[in-house]
Amino acid sequence: MSATNKPSKIYLAGPDVFLPEPLKLAEAKKKICAIHGFEGRFPLDNVIENFNPNKETGLRISQANEVLISECDSVIAHITPFRGPSADVGTAYEMGFARARGLTVCAYSNDASSFADRTAISSGPLSRKVSCGALLDRDGLEVEEFDMVDNLMLEGGVLASGGLVAINDVPAAERYTNLNGFEQCVIHLRQLVERGVALRN
Amino acid sequence: MSATNKPSKIYLAGPDVFLPEPLKLAEAKKKICAIHGFEGRFPLDNVIENFNPNKETGLRISQANEVLISECDSVIAHITPFRGPSADVGTAYEMGFARARGLTVCAYSNDASSFADRTAISSGPLSRKVSCGALLDRDGLEVEEFDMVDNLMLEGGVLASGGLVAINDVPAAERYTNLNGFEQCVIHLRQLVERGVALRN
Repeated sequence: MSATNKPSKIYLAGPDVFLPEPLKLAEAKKKICAIHGFEGRFPLDNVIENFNPNKETGLRISQANEVLISECDSVIAHITPFRGPSADVGTAYEMGFARARGLTVCAYSNDASSFADRTAISSGPLSRKVSCGALLDRDGLEVEEFDMVDNLMLEGGVLASGGLVAINDVPAAERYTNLNGFEQCVIHLRQLVERGVALRN
Repeated sequence: MSATNKPSKIYLAGPDVFLPEPLKLAEAKKKICAIHGFEGRFPLDNVIENFNPNKETGLRISQANEVLISECDSVIAHITPFRGPSADVGTAYEMGFARARGLTVCAYSNDASSFADRTAISSGPLSRKVSCGALLDRDGLEVEEFDMVDNLMLEGGVLASGGLVAINDVPAAERYTNLNGFEQCVIHLRQLVERGVALRN
C-alpha cells in the first residue's frame, strides 16, 4: 500500500447483512482491513433512499452493490453455508461479478465439514449410482466431489483470481461472526500487494 | 438474427448438470434455442481431459465455463431452488459473472412459492423482529422482502441487464426439467433482437 496514498479497497461480501448486528460486524471487518492497509467497503455503506419492501428498492440496492464492487480491487466473500449446504446465493453472484471485473476474490468459511457431508444433512441420505459411482442426494441429483469447499465455480473463481479460500472450524455461536478466516484473507491480499501483484486486472 | 450468419449464443446455466440425464435436457434446450434462431451452449459442451475427482479438475472445469460464458451474448439461468430456498450457487456465480461481462441475463424458476415461504420450510418458523418488523428465520437471520424471486442480487442483475425472470408452477415430477419458463426467456431474448437491442454490451 506504500506506493499510493489511496488504500486499496476490499468489497466485503457475505450474508453479514442478514445478521442481527450487521454494522458491528462491518466495523470489525473494516478495522482488520485498516490494520493491514486496506479500506473495507460494506454493502450497507450505500445509502438507499425511499427504502420500501418492493422490487424497485431491491433493484436499486443490487445496482448500488454492483457499482460498489466495481470500485474495489478485491473481494473477501463470507461463504459459510447459509440455509443449506452452500453459500448465500447473493454472495456467490457477487463473487462471479467481481471475478469477471478482474478483481482478486478471496473467500472464507467457518464450517470445515465437507461439501458432501453438508449435503447429506440437508438432502441425504446420499447414495452411489451403480453405473458410474457418482454420488447422489436423495432426489437423485449429483453431488460434486472435487475436494472443494462448495460448488466448483466458487473455489475455481477464487483460485483462478489468485485469491485464498480460508476454512476454519469455529464454535457454533461464532458461526457467522468469527473473523479468523477473514483476517487470513486480508493477510493473503496484503502479501500479494507486498510482492507487487496487482489485485485488479 | 437475420443481420448475421452466426446465431447469437446463449449460455445455459443451471443445476441441470447434476440431473440424472443432463445431456437430454441440454439437447431439449438447444433445440428450443435453435427454433428461435439462437445457439445454446451447455457447460458439458466443454471437453475436460484427464477428469479426476480433485481440485485440479474442478478448477479446469470452472475456467472452461468462464470462457464459455465469455463467448456468449446472453445467459438463461435455471434458478429453481436447489437444496434449500435459493438457487444453485454455481448458477448464481455464473449470473454475476455474465452480468459483469455485459451479457443479457434471463432466469427461470419452476417454483412459484414466495422466497419467504420457501425459507420458512427450510429455516422456519419465521418471526418478526419487535423493534423494526424485519422478518427473521429461526436462527435470527433476516429474510429479504423485496417481492423478488430470490436474493435481490439475482433478480436485480437480471432486470438491470434487460432480461426476464420467468416463474412458473409445474408438476412436482417436472421441477427441474419443465422448460416452459426456459422458452419464455428465449422468446424474450428473440424479441429483444427483433427490436434491434444488443444482447451484449
